[in-house]
Amino acid sequence: MHSDPTVADLSEGEILRRILARTGQGSATLLGPGDDAAVVAAPSGSVVATTDTLIHGPDFRLAWSSGYDLGWKSAAVNLADVAAMGARPTALLVALALPGRTRVSFVEAMAEGLRAACDALAPGCAVVGGDLATGDVLTVAVTALGDLEGRAPVTRSGARPGDVVAVAGELGRAARGLELLFTRFRDADGAPVAIRPDDLHAGDADALAAQLRPAPPIGLGPFAALSGATAMMDVSDGLVLDARRMADASRATLDIATDALGADPRLALEGGEDHALLATFPSGALPPGFRAIGRVVERGDAPVLVDGEAHRGAGGWDPYRDWDAAAG
Amino acid sequence: MHSDPTVADLSEGEILRRILARTGQGSATLLGPGDDAAVVAAPSGSVVATTDTLIHGPDFRLAWSSGYDLGWKSAAVNLADVAAMGARPTALLVALALPGRTRVSFVEAMAEGLRAACDALAPGCAVVGGDLATGDVLTVAVTALGDLEGRAPVTRSGARPGDVVAVAGELGRAARGLELLFTRFRDADGAPVAIRPDDLHAGDADALAAQLRPAPPIGLGPFAALSGATAMMDVSDGLVLDARRMADASRATLDIATDALGADPRLALEGGEDHALLATFPSGALPPGFRAIGRVVERGDAPVLVDGEAHRGAGGWDPYRDWDAAAG
Repeated sequence: MHSDPTVADLSEGEILRRILARTGQGSATLLGPGDDAAVVAAPSGSVVATTDTLIHGPDFRLAWSSGYDLGWKSAAVNLADVAAMGARPTALLVALALPGRTRVSFVEAMAEGLRAACDALAPGCAVVGGDLATGDVLTVAVTALGDLEGRAPVTRSGARPGDVVAVAGELGRAARGLELLFTRFRDADGAPVAIRPDDLHAGDADALAAQLRPAPPIGLGPFAALSGATAMMDVSDGLVLDARRMADASRATLDIATDALGADPRLALEGGEDHALLATFPSGALPPGFRAIGRVVERGDAPVLVDGEAHRGAGGWDPYRDWDAAAG
Repeated sequence: MHSDPTVADLSEGEILRRILARTGQGSATLLGPGDDAAVVAAPSGSVVATTDTLIHGPDFRLAWSSGYDLGWKSAAVNLADVAAMGARPTALLVALALPGRTRVSFVEAMAEGLRAACDALAPGCAVVGGDLATGDVLTVAVTALGDLEGRAPVTRSGARPGDVVAVAGELGRAARGLELLFTRFRDADGAPVAIRPDDLHAGDADALAAQLRPAPPIGLGPFAALSGATAMMDVSDGLVLDARRMADASRATLDIATDALGADPRLALEGGEDHALLATFPSGALPPGFRAIGRVVERGDAPVLVDGEAHRGAGGWDPYRDWDAAAG
């Protein structure tokens, strides 16, 4: 057998064994993998649940993402959705569709990335179950569960005029990483090529890491809820687009100040995939870890204002789609 | 616009609106679709969770399965895994990858099938969230959640010598349906063709329905747990293979009697996808809805005996794979 076998070379049982040797045990896991279903503690009598899928092509490219990166990112984007409700993540379920040619070492690295993201971002959370299937397109569908620890969920609809608009985590850095990938690491035909560390300038590595292995501030989600957040969501599709969703759900207008958005307000306003936490708090009650970026005002014609004016740029982007439309 | 638009013709928001108009509201849904995550009641302080994916090609063919069938089956196979733990299903999350050419009417029918399967098999359970993505291969990844209502989970590992082996639901009928599809509804090149009702003989419609819209006895899962089941699982890959898994987990041997398996013991032993419930009960404690098919005995050389002999046939099958290897 090849020293790095493909998934087609091994039995399903052997692949599962290799995955489960790497995914660890969570503190809320009452019954882990191996039965028809897992059992996860839900001590506060409810469970927060969300699912998000990464598909080869639109969501990641294998020239740019390692198995570890893919495992990490598929965990992180789901953990952020749990945290954005004010909940503590407790468990992940991972449904994999793998082409037969996929190296088992890639799958093992994915398992390690899933575990590392849990350990780093949401200690106590772990993979409790999943599904392994053969498919032509590498697909990772993750479901994340969480516990509200007795608190009410923080929805998108509670922002009230007078509240401060705040963010925890990065804005625009993942989008800058993606710009780097598309401008610097494609061949003449537009196809992705491997990242060459020698081609990275100051700050580039941070931007690539934000895109490939995002590290949203998961622990600040429950902390925001404890601190009185009136509304919260994660910024997955860009600040302007996601702020519009919060504004519409809350029937208010969010006025964002560009001078609070750092060196590149355009990327901060329009770039997605950082999975920062966008939250609103009563005036004067901004908790540590969050920085003010604006105010909630009475609902006007525009759901989102930037420096008091209706925003004229793109309303959030899907960089893979936008870039592909231009250059493959 | 075309009177039956594709998903590429409509915005994500409009497709979601059409799906959510059809998925209904569950009795355990505390916060439904529309926020970063859903919130589902878990009154007994834990949540049962499982995930299973259907992929176009290996798991279904569009010539044979309607959108309604696909929605129904993707719900049913996951509900069965929850029921097999002795839990009551409370919620589904559905991650869809849809090719751009998929008709929106197909997606709407899927949503109706998901809801109908919940209403018919697990009243009170409903879709609470999901994810909508574009992908080249139509893929439905469902996660099901359930509540144990204060009971301990019924695992695969509790079968004890002297227990009766029992089944609730069909065995072999879904496999017969698949045989019909592969023998009767393919063209000369082996490609699937639409099912012609005029070509169905007595019993064929039931067999096709068992394959395309399986109706496992979900309510009997919690009832078995209440009735003292010592071990339980759903039969997804064939009785012999799944009984072997239970025997290995329980460190016992299961002896199955073919005269309890109906008119076609081979299909009952080896055919998968009925999602019947396989359970063991203390002798003399068989509850209504279950029928005895054998005995648990001390662990011997073989994990599964059929009429006292080691089983010599196939140890469970994957009919799509087996058939494809022969004829495309």
